[in-house]
Amino acid sequence: MAKVVGLAKKVKKIGEDDPRRVVHSFKVGLALSLVSLYYYISPLFNSFGTSAIWAVLTVVVVMEYTAGGTLSKGLNRTFATLLAGALGVGAHQIAILSGEKGEPFLLGVFVFLLAAAATFSRFIPEIKASYDYGVTIFILTFSLVAVSSDRTVDAYELLQLAYQRFSTIAIGVAVCLLTSTFICPVWAGEDLHKLVASNLEKLASFLEGLGEEYFGEKVGGETMESKCFLRAYNSVLNSKSNMESLANLARWEPRHGHFGFLHPWKQYLKVGALSRQCAYSMEALMSHITSNERTQVCAKMKPEIRKMITSTCKEMSIECSKALKDLAATIRTMTTPAVCRHNIAIAAATTKLKVLLSEESIPSKMLETAIMASLLSQVVQCIPQIAASVEELAQLAKFKECKTLHKATVKPSTEEESPGVVINVME
Amino acid sequence: MAKVVGLAKKVKKIGEDDPRRVVHSFKVGLALSLVSLYYYISPLFNSFGTSAIWAVLTVVVVMEYTAGGTLSKGLNRTFATLLAGALGVGAHQIAILSGEKGEPFLLGVFVFLLAAAATFSRFIPEIKASYDYGVTIFILTFSLVAVSSDRTVDAYELLQLAYQRFSTIAIGVAVCLLTSTFICPVWAGEDLHKLVASNLEKLASFLEGLGEEYFGEKVGGETMESKCFLRAYNSVLNSKSNMESLANLARWEPRHGHFGFLHPWKQYLKVGALSRQCAYSMEALMSHITSNERTQVCAKMKPEIRKMITSTCKEMSIECSKALKDLAATIRTMTTPAVCRHNIAIAAATTKLKVLLSEESIPSKMLETAIMASLLSQVVQCIPQIAASVEELAQLAKFKECKTLHKATVKPSTEEESPGVVINVME
Repeated sequence: MAKVVGLAKKVKKIGEDDPRRVVHSFKVGLALSLVSLYYYISPLFNSFGTSAIWAVLTVVVVMEYTAGGTLSKGLNRTFATLLAGALGVGAHQIAILSGEKGEPFLLGVFVFLLAAAATFSRFIPEIKASYDYGVTIFILTFSLVAVSSDRTVDAYELLQLAYQRFSTIAIGVAVCLLTSTFICPVWAGEDLHKLVASNLEKLASFLEGLGEEYFGEKVGGETMESKCFLRAYNSVLNSKSNMESLANLARWEPRHGHFGFLHPWKQYLKVGALSRQCAYSMEALMSHITSNERTQVCAKMKPEIRKMITSTCKEMSIECSKALKDLAATIRTMTTPAVCRHNIAIAAATTKLKVLLSEESIPSKMLETAIMASLLSQVVQCIPQIAASVEELAQLAKFKECKTLHKATVKPSTEEESPGVVINVME
Repeated sequence: MAKVVGLAKKVKKIGEDDPRRVVHSFKVGLALSLVSLYYYISPLFNSFGTSAIWAVLTVVVVMEYTAGGTLSKGLNRTFATLLAGALGVGAHQIAILSGEKGEPFLLGVFVFLLAAAATFSRFIPEIKASYDYGVTIFILTFSLVAVSSDRTVDAYELLQLAYQRFSTIAIGVAVCLLTSTFICPVWAGEDLHKLVASNLEKLASFLEGLGEEYFGEKVGGETMESKCFLRAYNSVLNSKSNMESLANLARWEPRHGHFGFLHPWKQYLKVGALSRQCAYSMEALMSHITSNERTQVCAKMKPEIRKMITSTCKEMSIECSKALKDLAATIRTMTTPAVCRHNIAIAAATTKLKVLLSEESIPSKMLETAIMASLLSQVVQCIPQIAASVEELAQLAKFKECKTLHKATVKPSTEEESPGVVINVME
């Protein structure tokens, strides 16, 4: 009984996490009901006969969660069926020439060789990524046509069968495409777009938490391990395969919303890869923080040095967090990024930290803090790269010019050329 | 022309990288040829009729690269067909009760609801992992039976059709299983086993390269970035999804080689997760090394301190590399690990490094080196965890006792209880 309640709660949560899943389930039901109308409407049934089961089969197999997935599978299925059907009929004509005894043998050889070659082609990464399903359907259709043509003597009958089957498959694909692109469509491209932005936001919230809770005044009794911001970047670490499959599907999608047919999906993968890189550095910083927590080295240091280092670190984290949030907003709103107004502050804080750490000699009790600061700089080093890749994305995807007012910045932007001065301003 | 040559080279490389791919392609061809014999042997064809196409269809769709994949798909297909067929016939019987006009309507409602519910169930992670294909086939078969039963009036005819279809599917599945488990089988479990071991070896070769080329005497004119050992651990970073899918398939595989039916595949995922953790720390160390290379801080240090730190780091890296290699060998040979003989040396070197770094004050020019040493310690911290998880694996999987002679070790193992002494020995 408890298990049933647990399952019900789980199911409810899955639906609540993303209500599009519920919608998708009903869409599949709808598409299937639509396609089974063929059976119930007598004139249609009479013209297609039992081939109508191919329409049902197609709907079940082709209908995917994202519009790109459905389109990719639908087109793969349609073209693979056409190509393999034509090749199958051709193979049948060649086999006939070899006489009644040789025919099945020759057909068997054809099927064997084609199936082996096509199966091998699925190991080629480019084919695997975009045409895997097409190759399966190619093997399937070729085998079916080549094998069953042996039993269907009449050429006219064969052609009619081929026509019926192809048109039912086309109808199935059409029903799927209509349902998945017109009724609450789930675009893989949009999901990828949002995923990249939300990954940047996750990195930002780690840095924000670090700045405010770890370096900030709030450092208190709780252990660091219990803070949830420390795990914010966690899902970024393993985002690679999900992003790649979304990018693969997005390429199939037609123009929708702000995304054209040739939207630079590959650039999203670049931004994603750099975000992962940044998350790796965060992981190193995080494990340093949690493993050195008990020693509480900070507390033993001379107060003024401690204060200077932590306040610089705090500034760095918070400015970086803001920069990442801006970049995420750039992606979300699809506006060209304003010249990153946090860059100056970040560069200044980094320089200041270097100056602080290059004092003639460092008390060894401060080493842990110095290491932590250095790990933080490594995280910070990733930000300009991410910013550059987002700018490239903005260019490639022709984000619209940002016309909104700049928010007030602490430092006048004319000082951009003389970063040395900025340090003085900040001290 | 150049493109064709390029493609040919690529195809050749894919085949050479893993010759099992070529074998698999021919196995698919063979299975298809075997199953199409139904068409050519008249008595068989006469008893099954056109239902024989379902055997061909099954082979094309069920045959997977790994034995576990084929088994999982085959069993999913068989049981889903049985269950959905029975439910479909039941639904038909209920629908009949509602009269000739109500029947198609009621059947449509059934199809709609069942398809929606089953589609939704695919979002539950446990079902997605193991029964995704089964759910698809369930929807497919239920729809086909429910929809087409409306046109097949005769109950006897319906039963015969169901029997024919089920038996052809079972034959297709049987052909697939026989080909994929008896002819050069590719076991997902074995692949997972080897992948986990080779990941540990990759981590080991990074540390070995670090010890010998970076800390060793060979530090010379070449830039660090060009060294290939620095990228050895790279494929470990993104190994998660591949490992999880292999572990999912491995669970379906019957006893083979040293792997029983209930082999602890989940423990491999744990070892894999810890290896990834270690690779993240390596990434942090690596980016520190490459980004601070130009400053060449080492060169400016007082020679004796520099020598002491680098030689300790060298020792740590090399001992850790040996420990990882031993763990990989433990997995490969499936023998219980001897009490890790490198643990002592690693612990000693770590302590020594701590002593070196806790001198009263550190010249700030040494800071980069200190940070690097500390990053290395973070990598080293992962090793005991990996060792523990491998030991747990050895216990769970009942690895055989190691009876081989221990290789000569530098330090006598009696010193294990007094690690303090070891430091003296090493100095």
